[in-house]
Amino acid sequence: MRNEFLIKKDGDLWLTEDERNNLKISYRIKEVVFEEKSPFQHVMILDSYEFGRMLVLDGIVQTTSLDGHIYNEMISHVPISFHPNPKKVLIIGGGDCGAAKEVCKYPEIEQVDMVEIDEAVVRACMEHLPAVSGSLSDERVRYIYDDGVKFIKDKENEYDVIIIDSSDPIGPAEVLFEKSFYQSVYRALKEDGLMVCQSGSPIFQENVNKQTYQRLKSLFPAVNMYVAVVPTYPGGLWSFTLASKRYETSNPDKVKNKDTYYVNENIVESCFALPAFVHKRLNE
Amino acid sequence: MRNEFLIKKDGDLWLTEDERNNLKISYRIKEVVFEEKSPFQHVMILDSYEFGRMLVLDGIVQTTSLDGHIYNEMISHVPISFHPNPKKVLIIGGGDCGAAKEVCKYPEIEQVDMVEIDEAVVRACMEHLPAVSGSLSDERVRYIYDDGVKFIKDKENEYDVIIIDSSDPIGPAEVLFEKSFYQSVYRALKEDGLMVCQSGSPIFQENVNKQTYQRLKSLFPAVNMYVAVVPTYPGGLWSFTLASKRYETSNPDKVKNKDTYYVNENIVESCFALPAFVHKRLNE
Repeated sequence: MRNEFLIKKDGDLWLTEDERNNLKISYRIKEVVFEEKSPFQHVMILDSYEFGRMLVLDGIVQTTSLDGHIYNEMISHVPISFHPNPKKVLIIGGGDCGAAKEVCKYPEIEQVDMVEIDEAVVRACMEHLPAVSGSLSDERVRYIYDDGVKFIKDKENEYDVIIIDSSDPIGPAEVLFEKSFYQSVYRALKEDGLMVCQSGSPIFQENVNKQTYQRLKSLFPAVNMYVAVVPTYPGGLWSFTLASKRYETSNPDKVKNKDTYYVNENIVESCFALPAFVHKRLNE
Repeated sequence: MRNEFLIKKDGDLWLTEDERNNLKISYRIKEVVFEEKSPFQHVMILDSYEFGRMLVLDGIVQTTSLDGHIYNEMISHVPISFHPNPKKVLIIGGGDCGAAKEVCKYPEIEQVDMVEIDEAVVRACMEHLPAVSGSLSDERVRYIYDDGVKFIKDKENEYDVIIIDSSDPIGPAEVLFEKSFYQSVYRALKEDGLMVCQSGSPIFQENVNKQTYQRLKSLFPAVNMYVAVVPTYPGGLWSFTLASKRYETSNPDKVKNKDTYYVNENIVESCFALPAFVHKRLNE
């Protein structure tokens, strides 16, 4: 199988990400494991030499077997460590199922609603990307194939934790970075609820980074940014923003002895130490 | 000017790093600012669209205007924050002059010996890479163009802080990762001295990472690894190992109000929080 995103050179198959004009990253590929054109995007699972199996949407690498756990652990365990008693969690996006897999490591959580627009992504990852999805099978997870913005509109006082696991704010995910969407999220949270979202690269997406923080700050009393290293994202350094109605500190004991690869008690606290240039940007 | 490391495609100049078989990173280049074949290596300063000016040795990007400060601040301010009264500092390698520039931000330091094997690298960076070198002009710095291993051999009880700012342990820098070299460093340090070295990528150089820690642990009473994000290095996550004869904790106040871009009081403490997989690896 061949497609517009892959090229063959000297007998080898390569995927070159084409989103950036000035920096190209090329992955040597062993095999195309899955390919489908869904109503929303071109979905592939590729087996690469350097990162193992990867989820690729419209030619852009989203998550890999080598490091997918970093992003998914950071977007899940950190907010949960802030909430003393989370029962009901909503994940918007997160089609690789990695965030849902991490959330399910907490027995006190009773229900996880995962709202992903593209069923093909979930199906591909469940079947062909077990390192990320864990081929998740947990009765507490409800898979809802719908538009996150539409889904959340009429929800009120319903969730303890909302995780916004979106792609970049270009194209379909753009609305997930707008203030009106965050207002819906605020309303959908219980009175002591909290939310987290990915807030871009502090190095290459200065505007997304700062805007997300400021928009949330105008709505929630407690807003804090934290960072992690995600090797497959440009620049490596990635940011998340946690916005909370009540709880302002993490309880590192909550992540103790969890089966994790990146997160531990020290990481859930130290991740809030921001590089000087990020700290300065947010406080200007 | 054209050379074996650059190719022209559709009117654009590109540098593609060729060190890895399975992952290629290509930078779009505005201009070749400096090029020279030194007795040791092929030295270039390239002006790139994404990272600004970059130091490129034998076709591999070493440091860039965009993020060179991260590596240099982390390898300098963290060890200095551990020492209550550093007077004499030795830098081995560090031809981009960035580490020396950071060390010079401490007025209590009286002498900085910088031992770099390749004079062409220093000259290129001083003249053409001011964002990294700061075109450093400080009377306390002695530039010594020599082999670091040879230079340190007969030194005894002389330095407060030794910074080993080497390239990867392939080729010429390999000896800078050997136990016999660390023994020389130990001897060259005063009785309350401490050293730091870059110890590779925790993700892509598992062996370098673990070996460096273990070798230093067999010589020094206090050894601690810390991490930072260096976007231009593969995987982004990078490690440093600090080995100390006496002092075991940092004094964050020392970095307060320094003119830095990445390091601040929180970073010099939080950088020692290691991801679970690194922590586990070191304690196995």
